[in-house]
Amino acid sequence: MADKKEWDQSQLRKYDIQLDEIPRLSVKDPKVDEFIADNKPVIITDTRLVASAERWDLDYLEQNMGNGDFSVFLSRNHKFKYFDDKKILPTSGDSRLDFTPPTRRVDMKLPEFTRKLRQWRRGEERMYLQQALNNTVGPAIVQDFLNFRWEWINSKQKMHSWGPLTSNLLLIAMEGNVTPCHYDEQQNFFAEVRGFKRCILFPPEQFECFYPHPVYHPHDRQSQVDFERPDYTRFPKFREARGQEAIVGPGDVLYIPIYWWHHIESIMRGGYTISVNFWYKAGPTGQIVYPLKDHQKVAIMRNVEKMLVEALQDPHEVGPLLRALVLGRYTD
Amino acid sequence: MADKKEWDQSQLRKYDIQLDEIPRLSVKDPKVDEFIADNKPVIITDTRLVASAERWDLDYLEQNMGNGDFSVFLSRNHKFKYFDDKKILPTSGDSRLDFTPPTRRVDMKLPEFTRKLRQWRRGEERMYLQQALNNTVGPAIVQDFLNFRWEWINSKQKMHSWGPLTSNLLLIAMEGNVTPCHYDEQQNFFAEVRGFKRCILFPPEQFECFYPHPVYHPHDRQSQVDFERPDYTRFPKFREARGQEAIVGPGDVLYIPIYWWHHIESIMRGGYTISVNFWYKAGPTGQIVYPLKDHQKVAIMRNVEKMLVEALQDPHEVGPLLRALVLGRYTD
Ligand SMILES: [Zn+2]
Ligand SMILES: [Zn+2]
Repeated sequence: MADKKEWDQSQLRKYDIQLDEIPRLSVKDPKVDEFIADNKPVIITDTRLVASAERWDLDYLEQNMGNGDFSVFLSRNHKFKYFDDKKILPTSGDSRLDFTPPTRRVDMKLPEFTRKLRQWRRGEERMYLQQALNNTVGPAIVQDFLNFRWEWINSKQKMHSWGPLTSNLLLIAMEGNVTPCHYDEQQNFFAEVRGFKRCILFPPEQFECFYPHPVYHPHDRQSQVDFERPDYTRFPKFREARGQEAIVGPGDVLYIPIYWWHHIESIMRGGYTISVNFWYKAGPTGQIVYPLKDHQKVAIMRNVEKMLVEALQDPHEVGPLLRALVLGRYTD
Repeated sequence: MADKKEWDQSQLRKYDIQLDEIPRLSVKDPKVDEFIADNKPVIITDTRLVASAERWDLDYLEQNMGNGDFSVFLSRNHKFKYFDDKKILPTSGDSRLDFTPPTRRVDMKLPEFTRKLRQWRRGEERMYLQQALNNTVGPAIVQDFLNFRWEWINSKQKMHSWGPLTSNLLLIAMEGNVTPCHYDEQQNFFAEVRGFKRCILFPPEQFECFYPHPVYHPHDRQSQVDFERPDYTRFPKFREARGQEAIVGPGDVLYIPIYWWHHIESIMRGGYTISVNFWYKAGPTGQIVYPLKDHQKVAIMRNVEKMLVEALQDPHEVGPLLRALVLGRYTD
C-alpha cells in the first residue's frame, strides 16, 4: 500500500459497531505465524503472493480470461448476501416460509461483464463477479496463476497443518458493493489485487451477537443482522459485538481465520476491486482439549441443527422442537 | 371400588389446572386394548392383577416382608420429588449450581418402617417407601407375588409388543404424600392395592407446559413447575396444561403410558396407600413414520442434551451453547 492514504473515512459505510484495528505485519515478521497458529486475523504485507496479477484490470482480463462462463450476482441494492440455492425448499402453502433470493445469479462471458461494468449507471442493478478460477482461463492468466508465490503459501499451509486448498475464488466487485457478515468453514488467505476493500472481522466467541440463519436455510452461515439497520429487539446481543477492521489494498493479504465472522465492502468511489481467495480445509483435529474452543462449539451447534433436520425429516419442525428444548429449561 | 364414593373432593389437593376424567373400563371391554395400543391412559377394573395382595396391610407386611432393606424417602413437606443421586455433581465453587436434595433416602427394615408409620405425628418428616420387590421377601409374599395374574399382564405385554418387565416397585405412602409431576421412560401398569391415589396425567404433546429439568440434572424427567404455586413468569405455558385425572382405589389398574406426565397423590385423610408398579421397556421401534410422534420427539430432545454433555464434557456449558443456538435464531 502506498505511504499516503489512498482513501478516506468518507468512503467507508457507517455502522454503529466498536472496531479495533487488525494488525499489519511484514511477511518477514515471525509474529505472523503466531497469529495464524492462534487463528487470529492479520494483514500480511509484501508477500508478493499475487504479484503476477498486478497487471489484472478490465482490459487485460477481457483479453485473457478465455471464453468460460463466470458467475455474476446481480443485486438491486449494494448488498450481496450469499444464499445456497440447494437449500431452497419447494414452495409451501405457507408464504412466510418461502425464500426470496436477494440477488440473482447469472452466467456471463468476461467481455460481457466488463462492458456492463463500464456502462453501469447509478440506479441500475449492481454486479459482483464471483467465480472459482478453472481450466477455461486463457494461457496468460494460467501463467499469472502459476506465478503466484505458491512456495510461500504452501509453506504456511504445511506449517499450520491446514488441509488441502479447495479453491481460488476470483472476486470482481463494483465500488461500494457489500458482502454482509457471515462465516466460512474454511481457512482463507484473502489477497487484494486491485482497489481497496474494507474488512470487518469478529471472532467465533461472538456467535451470539450475529444470530445466523438456521443451518438448513439458504442463508446458512449468514448473520440475520442488517449492519445498517440492526433490529436490536430481535438481536439484542448485536450491541455487544466488537470487531476488528482493516482496509486491504493491492499487495495485502488478509488472513481470515476459519469460523470468523466477516463483513467486506469495496470502498465507495474507489473504483472496482479485484481479489483472490485462497481457501483451505481445516487441518486434522488432533487431540481434543477441554474446554472446547468457540469455533469447535460452532461446529457442534451446526451438527445439532443438521441432526435434527435429519431426525425430523422436516426443517419446519426444528424450531418448535428447539424452543421446547430450551425455553424455560435452559433460559432464565 | 365400592359403589358409593369412599372419598370426597375435600381430600384432594387444589390445583389451578383444567382436568378431564380418565376413562374406567372393565377388563372385558375390548376398547381397553385400543387405549393401550394408542398410548392413552385408561383405568382397567376387575383385572384381579394383584388380588393376591388384597390382604397386604402393615401387620401382614411386617410379618412377611423378610429382613431385607427397604428404600424409604423422608421429606420435610408432603412432596417427594425424585432425584438421581448419580447425577449430583461434585460441589462447585458456584453455589447456584449446587444441588440440595429435597428428600433423604434411608434404608429401613420393614418393621421399623411400620412402627414409625404408626407413631407418626403431624409436623414430623413424612415417609414414602419405594422399593423394588426382590428375593429378600419372605415366602408368603413370594406366594402372593406368584399369584399375581401374570397370564393377563403377560398377554397385554405380548399383544402390544412391549419389551421385558424391568421391575415391580412396591410403594407405601402416607396419606397426603405427593409424587410431583414427571415422566418415565417405561410403560407402566400401576396397580392399587390399598387406599386411594389421585393420578393426574398429561400427554407428551404438552412437553412445553412442564419445563423438565435438564437431562443431566438430578431432577431429570421431573417438571420444574410447582403445581401448588406455579411460577407463570418462568413457566408461562403451564397455563395451557390440560390433564386427565382419576382416583384409583383397591383393585384398579391404571395404565400410565410411556413419556406421559404424571402427578400422583395419596388422598388426604385416607390412611396409608399401597401400590405396585409393573414397568416394561418400550417395544421395538419398527418402521419409523413421519411426522414423528411427540414421545419420539421427547426422546430426540433427550439425545440432543446427552450428546451435548458428552461433546462439551461439562454440563454447565450445555445451557450457554443451547441459548446461543436458539435465542434470536429459532425464536421470534
Ligand atoms: Zn467469506
Ligand atoms: Zn412415575
